[in-house]
Amino acid sequence: MTLKSESSAHQRLLIAASELFTRKGYSGTTVREIVAAAGVTKPVLYYYFRNKEGIYLELMRETFDKVDVLLSSSFNENGSAIQKLKHFCDQAFLLFLENIQVVRMMYSIYYGPHQGAPFFDFESYNLKIQQSIRKLVEEAVRRDEFSIGNVEEITWIILGAISVAVEVQLVHPERGINREGLERILDLIFQGLGKGAQKWKGVRR
Amino acid sequence: MTLKSESSAHQRLLIAASELFTRKGYSGTTVREIVAAAGVTKPVLYYYFRNKEGIYLELMRETFDKVDVLLSSSFNENGSAIQKLKHFCDQAFLLFLENIQVVRMMYSIYYGPHQGAPFFDFESYNLKIQQSIRKLVEEAVRRDEFSIGNVEEITWIILGAISVAVEVQLVHPERGINREGLERILDLIFQGLGKGAQKWKGVRR
Repeated sequence: MTLKSESSAHQRLLIAASELFTRKGYSGTTVREIVAAAGVTKPVLYYYFRNKEGIYLELMRETFDKVDVLLSSSFNENGSAIQKLKHFCDQAFLLFLENIQVVRMMYSIYYGPHQGAPFFDFESYNLKIQQSIRKLVEEAVRRDEFSIGNVEEITWIILGAISVAVEVQLVHPERGINREGLERILDLIFQGLGKGAQKWKGVRR
Repeated sequence: MTLKSESSAHQRLLIAASELFTRKGYSGTTVREIVAAAGVTKPVLYYYFRNKEGIYLELMRETFDKVDVLLSSSFNENGSAIQKLKHFCDQAFLLFLENIQVVRMMYSIYYGPHQGAPFFDFESYNLKIQQSIRKLVEEAVRRDEFSIGNVEEITWIILGAISVAVEVQLVHPERGINREGLERILDLIFQGLGKGAQKWKGVRR
């Protein structure tokens, strides 16, 4: 991630911290390294964030505030439930792409060794996203947009598509699934499960 | 994971090491901690594995040898390509479940901070599994078992289902997707994409 020269010290500190926490781990990163990478002095970090814990929690809050906006906005959309689902998945993936460095850090904290990072309730956000998708799937089933009513399994298929897109972006951005790629995958899922089925070529065996 | 009393010292060392590497990280784990957790003396570890690096590499090799067996065996199956796909996914997931502690360690090394663990080429195995699935999808398309020919997207959908099942098992085994759960998800995917579509209820809009 390149630092634009006009970035504020506040923003530069957040970016530097997220990169260091990912690469060296939370416990392996010092305040000295963060300020050096951000090109500021220690008092600047103390002023904005109080300490290492403060900058970590701010990274989390900043990102999950955006998730909250996504979660509260998505249900006001018009259109079919499948369109809402597609829109929600696209917006969630876009949010992820725009915050990829912080997401990388979250994966590192989530799957990596325990490092004494302050507790942050990732899990409840994970669940909220999952529940939002589930609700939209339920709506699609209720509105008779799917040919099958397996809410549970359909939700997992959609979550799987998003998670594979996210993980390929994290590890192999070069052969990454971009927004259009995820859309193609979701379209195929919905085409398969939806009532457009009769339009396929050669449905007779 | 409970240690059966009849486990050999060799096996107890491997289990203890995988648990410590996951929880404390590779660099954060000492030989002294491994032997203490396994209930053996240092010379026993040196005898079997030479050093910490040796025990780590043995964990990897042992697991990926099983992946190699899976990869070479799966294509001899009879039946439709979709049946082979289902069988391959089930066997891959079973292998994962039987080695969950090592897989947890791999996630920790893969996504966690860099910790100086010796290089192991996870990636090539990831790719091999992906390619096996892709080949079977191609076969299913060629044999006209799918109504659509998007090999790329179908492969991602299947990989997503497996990865979501694996990750739920890693983090929330209690609401985990077991083998039957993954089978239901895959069945739904194949039902959607396959030519069984005409048998669905109410395909007319």
